[in-house]
Amino acid sequence: MAQKHSPRVLKRFLHYRQCLIQFQRHGFRKVFSYSLGKEAGVTAEQVRKDFSLFSIKGSRRGGYDIAYLLHSINEIFKQNSERMVILVGIGNIGQALIHYEGFKENKINIVAGFDLDPSKCLKRFAIPVYPPDRIPEIVFKYGVKTAIIAVPEISGQAICDMLVSAGIKGILNFSPILLKVPDDVIVNYVNLRNELETLFFYT
Amino acid sequence: MAQKHSPRVLKRFLHYRQCLIQFQRHGFRKVFSYSLGKEAGVTAEQVRKDFSLFSIKGSRRGGYDIAYLLHSINEIFKQNSERMVILVGIGNIGQALIHYEGFKENKINIVAGFDLDPSKCLKRFAIPVYPPDRIPEIVFKYGVKTAIIAVPEISGQAICDMLVSAGIKGILNFSPILLKVPDDVIVNYVNLRNELETLFFYT
Repeated sequence: MAQKHSPRVLKRFLHYRQCLIQFQRHGFRKVFSYSLGKEAGVTAEQVRKDFSLFSIKGSRRGGYDIAYLLHSINEIFKQNSERMVILVGIGNIGQALIHYEGFKENKINIVAGFDLDPSKCLKRFAIPVYPPDRIPEIVFKYGVKTAIIAVPEISGQAICDMLVSAGIKGILNFSPILLKVPDDVIVNYVNLRNELETLFFYT
Repeated sequence: MAQKHSPRVLKRFLHYRQCLIQFQRHGFRKVFSYSLGKEAGVTAEQVRKDFSLFSIKGSRRGGYDIAYLLHSINEIFKQNSERMVILVGIGNIGQALIHYEGFKENKINIVAGFDLDPSKCLKRFAIPVYPPDRIPEIVFKYGVKTAIIAVPEISGQAICDMLVSAGIKGILNFSPILLKVPDDVIVNYVNLRNELETLFFYT
């Protein structure tokens, strides 16, 4: 089932989740497709179509139960089990991610870190840090399929190649470089500079 | 001129820039619209159309000069002058941003930080850190129009409201919350958890 849905559908679900959490915080327990759609910036039809894709049911009269929706969305993203990821690059961004509450609170577990700088492997972080040549061993040991790249752009592609040949299938890339990967590997990009620059254009 | 282009066009330009920098690194000095389009994942027509929007010119025979393209794109994003931003929230993410090389290298200057925790205002960071009630004063002093929010979600909207009433027009939001802003304020979201979760779905 996993492969047939587009990233765009998935991003809408994550957006729905964010809206639903806010509704819940305001004391609501039920929601209609039109109110969720309005909050999320899509049509009510789109909401109903998306939910029916994953066999998530509501009633025409009572709407959807918010707790049920949240549980169903978490199921889609496997949130009901622990999710493991490795992190390559223990610089400023990497260290912030190690301590990022948004991961910890949501059962996202950074099982190991890697850094080219041997001194980083000696320091005590909240996770064990290894040299990159141990990537294949650690990936195999934990059966992890997802990695974060937070290295300078000069080493981004080389690290990516190591991850891919170790069996990593999903990469979150903070390095300001476009990665070349095989078709069965997915890359999400977070380019902090670009996100700021579109703002400078308007302001 | 600024207001008539959509964020989507701007994001394509940032993507073009990333591709062009890589071409340049590989020793190329000229590029044709079809090779740039192929690298950026759009059609050659799209590339030519985007460039002509900003009166960026190439020749049918020789293609575009890469250095000229990069200069023109930097002009669009005002990179040829210093760009100022303030940062609210000096936690893990905030501290990583203060030291983020990708900002420094590109004349993006975080002029001041703000934090609710008074102890943060006493510590020595690379930038001055103030309590949030000084936001209006500092925004006015520097004439800054752009801000980064890196506070926990519970205080996200309150901080956003303070920024907007101080005159901020562009916000980069790391807080996992949807912000309510007036129509003339633009928000870009970086939701690290969501970026990772779409990967868990596929892997």
